Amino acid sequence: MNAGADLAGFAAGLRFEHIPGEVVRKTEDLLVDWFASAVAGHGSRPVTAISSFAQAMGPQQGAAEVITTRRRSSPYFAAMANAAASHVAEQDDVHNGSVFHPATVVFSPALAVAQALGASGRQLLAACVAGYETGIRVGEFLGRSHYKVFHTTGTAGTLAAAAAVGNLLGLDAQQMRHAFGSAGTQSAGLWEFLRTGADSKQLHTAHAAAAGLLSAYLAKDGFTGADRIFDGPQGMAAGMSSDADARKLTDGLGTRWATAETSFKYHASCRHTHPAADALAAVMIEHALKPADIARIVTHVHQGAIDVLGPVVDPVTVHQSKFSMGTVLALVAHYRHAGLPEFEEHFRDDAIVALRDRIEMERDPEVDGAYPRRWIGKVTVHTVDGRTLRGRVDEPKGDPGNTLSRDEITAKALQLAAFSGGATEAEMRAAVQRLWQVAHWPRVDALLPLPPAGEGRGEGA
Amino acid sequence: MNAGADLAGFAAGLRFEHIPGEVVRKTEDLLVDWFASAVAGHGSRPVTAISSFAQAMGPQQGAAEVITTRRRSSPYFAAMANAAASHVAEQDDVHNGSVFHPATVVFSPALAVAQALGASGRQLLAACVAGYETGIRVGEFLGRSHYKVFHTTGTAGTLAAAAAVGNLLGLDAQQMRHAFGSAGTQSAGLWEFLRTGADSKQLHTAHAAAAGLLSAYLAKDGFTGADRIFDGPQGMAAGMSSDADARKLTDGLGTRWATAETSFKYHASCRHTHPAADALAAVMIEHALKPADIARIVTHVHQGAIDVLGPVVDPVTVHQSKFSMGTVLALVAHYRHAGLPEFEEHFRDDAIVALRDRIEMERDPEVDGAYPRRWIGKVTVHTVDGRTLRGRVDEPKGDPGNTLSRDEITAKALQLAAFSGGATEAEMRAAVQRLWQVAHWPRVDALLPLPPAGEGRGEGA
Repeated sequence: MNAGADLAGFAAGLRFEHIPGEVVRKTEDLLVDWFASAVAGHGSRPVTAISSFAQAMGPQQGAAEVITTRRRSSPYFAAMANAAASHVAEQDDVHNGSVFHPATVVFSPALAVAQALGASGRQLLAACVAGYETGIRVGEFLGRSHYKVFHTTGTAGTLAAAAAVGNLLGLDAQQMRHAFGSAGTQSAGLWEFLRTGADSKQLHTAHAAAAGLLSAYLAKDGFTGADRIFDGPQGMAAGMSSDADARKLTDGLGTRWATAETSFKYHASCRHTHPAADALAAVMIEHALKPADIARIVTHVHQGAIDVLGPVVDPVTVHQSKFSMGTVLALVAHYRHAGLPEFEEHFRDDAIVALRDRIEMERDPEVDGAYPRRWIGKVTVHTVDGRTLRGRVDEPKGDPGNTLSRDEITAKALQLAAFSGGATEAEMRAAVQRLWQVAHWPRVDALLPLPPAGEGRGEGA
Repeated sequence: MNAGADLAGFAAGLRFEHIPGEVVRKTEDLLVDWFASAVAGHGSRPVTAISSFAQAMGPQQGAAEVITTRRRSSPYFAAMANAAASHVAEQDDVHNGSVFHPATVVFSPALAVAQALGASGRQLLAACVAGYETGIRVGEFLGRSHYKVFHTTGTAGTLAAAAAVGNLLGLDAQQMRHAFGSAGTQSAGLWEFLRTGADSKQLHTAHAAAAGLLSAYLAKDGFTGADRIFDGPQGMAAGMSSDADARKLTDGLGTRWATAETSFKYHASCRHTHPAADALAAVMIEHALKPADIARIVTHVHQGAIDVLGPVVDPVTVHQSKFSMGTVLALVAHYRHAGLPEFEEHFRDDAIVALRDRIEMERDPEVDGAYPRRWIGKVTVHTVDGRTLRGRVDEPKGDPGNTLSRDEITAKALQLAAFSGGATEAEMRAAVQRLWQVAHWPRVDALLPLPPAGEGRGEGA
């Protein structure tokens, strides 16, 4: 029994024809949603630092598109830059059961390699499903103990990227095993940066995309990796988990489509804040509350939310504030939605800070027991006039049972582009319109037009 | 108290004038020894795979030298390729106390960046000492529990590379802290590959050199990292060690020069085999034994040797055989030295395999207690005529108290180049001769001449 080998065989062998139609459509939705998140990274300081590095160290030309700058590079550097870009707005997708953000570490390397190879749209979609199915199962395999210290998107992300790129490169099952070995032994990403709101989250996704791509190319060239990188005595589980379960690596392979379980993000914050945010919004609407009516709020959460959000008590940057439960709920109390403009313009407002500091998290047995498969939101609102109001959501907005329509995905994409200035409305509409047809593309070309001077778009101020 | 911040401040502030003369001379020795190991990587299959990737994904020109191909690239890819090359022959240096191979992850990125910046020889040397002092202390900090699962050269290597490159880039103390945060959160490398003799060791050093370099460049550009990447509640120790000790990060900073404690490798095998190899050689010489006289051998070792070498019972590749205690001792019994030609030509000989299978490892309390600060070698040889002979060395050849002279380092360099074909004897002699003068170089240029056609040297068959 070697579950890792079975997963590698699946990732190598997956073809477009094997994937149910509704999973293909969901993958198209996820691709458009990812593209919008990449455009949203335009002008972000950490993203600009990584794309500037890629430009300085990489070739000045190439077949792969850096979405935020419109420059071209090699697939390696385009994957690195686009993965950094698509994770910064905290609007990219998430898979609940694995607490893993697949899009940024799957589409970034897959698009870059597909552009370099001239692959078809269907080849791109199949490769991305291979990446989703792999990365999600690796995240589930690594378990909750892993997530307490490690950023699963960074760690499982190397495997997801290797699976997607390896599928595009046509690796056979044995080569894919080697690619997984190389990817797993580069697996990295620690939560420690959150404490001071440092930039590492973008580095984690950039690293995962680049390291996974490297692993797949090396395997194609005969480079070998560990045979049991997941469950061997000195493998990933031995080093980075105390509750890993190898059966999860192959759970329902080919019948259960984990890709379709992926959630879209409605709020522009850490996913751990979303269930409570939606529950609070429901209370506010049901009881016609105003922010001034609120004395304090208790959110009833799973332990993972406390682990990740607990250290963030006084966020000093926009990005850090997206990991502050208090900030997110205070924004929702004022604006019903914690989107990019709300964070950017209001996260340090006096009213937001004052309410933020009256919001606490408590571990809730029911919520914790359902997690990570279900992300239940429960809040208790104590009003200044002495009432105790309770709110609950069973599926936060964006989850498969409460998903975004194609119109909502398009609207979100237009908002993200408008916010970052990464593309004009016309460019964005045209790109999204084309992307809905990706399954019919004979070859994957650039998603956005080159700028007139062929000079790349400036980033930042 | 933040030991990581103190270490970062030291690495940022270290200048040539601060370093004692004997440490400078040792660093020159280590540089020459590293260069020879990089040349020794010429033609190796996994090295060629990584350098081919670097060439495909990187620029075709640049200021940094890829030693095995004589091509030029950006510092990022030259660092990656040279780090892969200099760790494959298992002849690069090792620091006993940290069980860490500094040269490959320090000189590779530092040379590449020094060439790109036009730094002086003294700047290069100071940066490399910063890298050694940092990487060794991080290895000691991570401890023995870490080394049971993680390849410390890969994990601590990201920090060593960041320190060296950050010093060359002129990072201030705060920027170096950020560079350490970015490097530590990319820290990776699992021993699992050894079980099947896979190629990951070269990937680990390539990854560490590249990720550390990236971290330093990003910090220069304002990119931030975790403040307490070493000992924070979700930092490296929390994720990857159960016996980490933060005091070791700053142990004797500026007075104890860990660089000078580094050992050269005499045998071309895993360092864990060297004490026993030298002890066996002593027995063979003292008692004028022939291989046919030996019934069986017991080596008395530290637990770390069993952890790393234990899984290797029937090596099928030259590289894997360097992690087989039995193979190494069988070669020493036959040839007195387990060098590159002995492995390449004889590791699967019937006589070697037959003796190999009669050699066992036993944990020895004295040896284990002294480890890792001292690597004592003890063997018991049982002869076919019924004698029990014991051998012992307290400092294996290459350790500071039993070091290699400059003539021996030069001879080793010429042997490595001749073995790999990576440079002619004349080229190698000229390069080594120049390198002994590195402290007087106004700027660091290429170590080897470009080939006549400007085409790069072919690698492999």
